[in-house]
Amino acid sequence: MRATLDLAAVEAMDAADPLRAMRDRFILPEGVIYLDGNSLGAAAPAVFNELQKAATQEWAQDLIRAWNTAGWFDMPVALGDQLGRLIGAAAGQTVVCDTTSINIYKVLHAALAMRPDRTVIVAEGDSFPTDLYMAEGVASTRPGTVLRLEGVDAPTIEELIDERVAVILVNHVNYKSGQLRDMAALTRKAHEAGALIVWDLCHTAGALPVELDAANADFAIGCTYKYLNGGPGAPAFIYAATRHHDHVHQPLSGWWGHARPFAFEQGFAAGSGIRRFLCGTQPVLSMRALKGALDIWDQVDMAAVRKKSIALTELFIQLVEARCGAYGLELESPRDGNARGSQVSFLHPHGYQVMRALIERGVIGDFRAPSTIRFGFTPLYVGYRDVWQAVEVLEDILRTGAWQEARFAVKTAVT
Amino acid sequence: MRATLDLAAVEAMDAADPLRAMRDRFILPEGVIYLDGNSLGAAAPAVFNELQKAATQEWAQDLIRAWNTAGWFDMPVALGDQLGRLIGAAAGQTVVCDTTSINIYKVLHAALAMRPDRTVIVAEGDSFPTDLYMAEGVASTRPGTVLRLEGVDAPTIEELIDERVAVILVNHVNYKSGQLRDMAALTRKAHEAGALIVWDLCHTAGALPVELDAANADFAIGCTYKYLNGGPGAPAFIYAATRHHDHVHQPLSGWWGHARPFAFEQGFAAGSGIRRFLCGTQPVLSMRALKGALDIWDQVDMAAVRKKSIALTELFIQLVEARCGAYGLELESPRDGNARGSQVSFLHPHGYQVMRALIERGVIGDFRAPSTIRFGFTPLYVGYRDVWQAVEVLEDILRTGAWQEARFAVKTAVT
Repeated sequence: MRATLDLAAVEAMDAADPLRAMRDRFILPEGVIYLDGNSLGAAAPAVFNELQKAATQEWAQDLIRAWNTAGWFDMPVALGDQLGRLIGAAAGQTVVCDTTSINIYKVLHAALAMRPDRTVIVAEGDSFPTDLYMAEGVASTRPGTVLRLEGVDAPTIEELIDERVAVILVNHVNYKSGQLRDMAALTRKAHEAGALIVWDLCHTAGALPVELDAANADFAIGCTYKYLNGGPGAPAFIYAATRHHDHVHQPLSGWWGHARPFAFEQGFAAGSGIRRFLCGTQPVLSMRALKGALDIWDQVDMAAVRKKSIALTELFIQLVEARCGAYGLELESPRDGNARGSQVSFLHPHGYQVMRALIERGVIGDFRAPSTIRFGFTPLYVGYRDVWQAVEVLEDILRTGAWQEARFAVKTAVT
Repeated sequence: MRATLDLAAVEAMDAADPLRAMRDRFILPEGVIYLDGNSLGAAAPAVFNELQKAATQEWAQDLIRAWNTAGWFDMPVALGDQLGRLIGAAAGQTVVCDTTSINIYKVLHAALAMRPDRTVIVAEGDSFPTDLYMAEGVASTRPGTVLRLEGVDAPTIEELIDERVAVILVNHVNYKSGQLRDMAALTRKAHEAGALIVWDLCHTAGALPVELDAANADFAIGCTYKYLNGGPGAPAFIYAATRHHDHVHQPLSGWWGHARPFAFEQGFAAGSGIRRFLCGTQPVLSMRALKGALDIWDQVDMAAVRKKSIALTELFIQLVEARCGAYGLELESPRDGNARGSQVSFLHPHGYQVMRALIERGVIGDFRAPSTIRFGFTPLYVGYRDVWQAVEVLEDILRTGAWQEARFAVKTAVT
């Protein structure tokens, strides 16, 4: 830790930040330091513009014709390619559609069908739960399929991989701790055992460079409303390596995944390529908001994002430990920046109250039971001075015991 | 047919129309007579207002807090109840989420699980195809399940119902012909055979009064972007009768369907009531557009809608047959208004070219292969004079042979 770290030094970091101008593209409310973009990314005027154009021009004026004239029908694939650049996917392998949960169902089904003689799905006991719920759902439709969980059936995921494993569903970054997995290494280990692997990129897409093709990944899924800033509940995505496309069979076989959707044929015939992961008609307005967000990303260098992300999270850890070390906080995230996503979590026995007190003072992070306070750092619109100020507020809350006054708020406020 | 039907008489019908004022709530482009609201409903300023509020106030200013403060998380159920009134569903039985295709998958799965000793799904050979594709998809996950199709395995759906049938998936109105089924009678017949029934309301929700509860229906699904005007690709809905809720098991068991979604538990526990049809995070912006559209419907009497719908379609048939009868058009829809949805289809050997010519002149309907020209009549914003004018254009195109000139447009324009 640099002993001389003061506000002037922090402001100098902002002045030297190559991504600094990106902040002006986003709307951040007065009096708020927003450290929850890892849950819901911030809004941008460019997004509103897309939304307004789609609603008031295309829909209102072109009506049904807009499906063709405005390219609505092709958006899932077009946005998929646009997003693909951020996750190391060459064109034609990514499609934007539906929700993360539903996309997990599709890829797990497809993977299991590709390994018909294997019965095991491996996942993480501390995964974001919907991954596990969807794996349960898939397993319920395929008798004999079992779930093996890291942290339950063995301490590490690597120990769970053997010749009975059909597919591994794993988070690139853990939603709670921010622990980052080595994608290339775990993918290699899966393949050595003959298993397929599905990467959940919810906490890495837009947070750091992802290299799906280079890692030889099989499948990936993720959401677009966190670091990608696509808007609340924005449609999710699926990646499938080209080598698998012809072998994909998934039962959510709706008309958008048909080879000839407008021929209105009686029987299903899967479309070619990544399209066969499509199912039904997609929410155009939410898709267009996402387009506005991805257009901003077109101008962003992911290596610069990662560099700033590590610097922001490192600064936060340094300042918290230097200034709040006496107040019972314990670092939950990896200390090594290279093993960490773009978030920092601390444990505190009264974490819920501490986070309530922070939010009341305009520092928005979030809480995960039983005692995690979690702070997300989104390099496009969070600066070093934000980090400094957030720690100032945190220190004050802990030093004065102000978090204890937030107890009543805890009882009445629903989160 | 009234021999004296002239423009003055038609304008008098508009003057006496109790729904006439609703038209002002919608945006209809200059020079267009829009008879395709059965495919994509028209836009409304009230919808734009909701969308703008959700984006620029709630998302941009409240950020993550809006999930609670703006009621985003509860929207699927709240909008479901709001929509429920239009389809004869008491509160707590309807939820807005995902797509029609995905919702078909959920309800078919649930229904099959409720009839474990039965193996047959009955559907219509001339159904909108995604219903069949999804039935295929469900059947593919349940070995031994077979599909029986009306028009393929027997001439009528009634003849296909026996004690091996688990569930019947049937369209309330056929998307092509506009034929309307008797919901109460077919539901009774299904129940007499011990089968469950799923009603596809894509072409009746918002088009005519639907009485799911009164008909003792089991399940229903449908979209909200046609007669309901929810916007392009707006989220779909599911209805399930309360008596079935505790027996519903469906494999798209994501975190939004969990009994305690924010407890982040490892295992899935289905939520209570209609919530167990929820899966993943919903597209908030598209949901809010739908809210704006449903708010308009709050002020609409469905009996008045039906009365006007029959009058509009009857007028259209009368005028077309009187003025265009010599040009090879054949009525495909039922002649009896009580057996017809809110659309009229005619067959014409060069239907595609005729429809292209109509669209070029601002009369927007659509075409379904091989020879159907289809016109939807949405009583909230289509008037009797629109019908008169549409027929004038149609007559001119047929009389002059102008549709033949549209052949080149057919070759270059992709639909």
